[in-house]
Amino acid sequence: MAEENIIYVGKKPTMNYVLAIVTQFNNNVDHITIKARGKAISKAVDIAEITRRKFLHEAKYSAIKLDTELLKGERGELNVSSIEITLTR
Amino acid sequence: MAEENIIYVGKKPTMNYVLAIVTQFNNNVDHITIKARGKAISKAVDIAEITRRKFLHEAKYSAIKLDTELLKGERGELNVSSIEITLTR
Repeated sequence: MAEENIIYVGKKPTMNYVLAIVTQFNNNVDHITIKARGKAISKAVDIAEITRRKFLHEAKYSAIKLDTELLKGERGELNVSSIEITLTR
Repeated sequence: MAEENIIYVGKKPTMNYVLAIVTQFNNNVDHITIKARGKAISKAVDIAEITRRKFLHEAKYSAIKLDTELLKGERGELNVSSIEITLTR
């Protein structure tokens, strides 16, 4: 999967990510994966649902994966949940 | 699906839901669906991942569904994202 087909969800407003996805689909991409960790998981689902319902009605969820990642920092290790949502048209 | 096979994620601590799921699996239930809306979606993924990694290693995700629900209140209508995660052993 080319790197430009992945959207990492962070602290920007939800609609920024939605518009980035719609733009990529308009550039002849046929699938995009939305990745998020921790509290951003809820926002990732919002992004996917808004994209599908308001902009790309023909898009489908071709894969939804849940996982746990181990984050290592100066203060120790932390398990954090993650989601990967692949939208395909 | 029997109602007792559904866990609705709300404001309780994450581990309360994990232990409720583990208890139900120990009572010969073979699948459980975790449902959450809005900000609780991140917690639902935590619950599913902790259940699967720490307690029920044989459990698999048999279905993960994303949807949008229309909430109607006195102040108007609101679209909210939802997730349904089905764990099966």
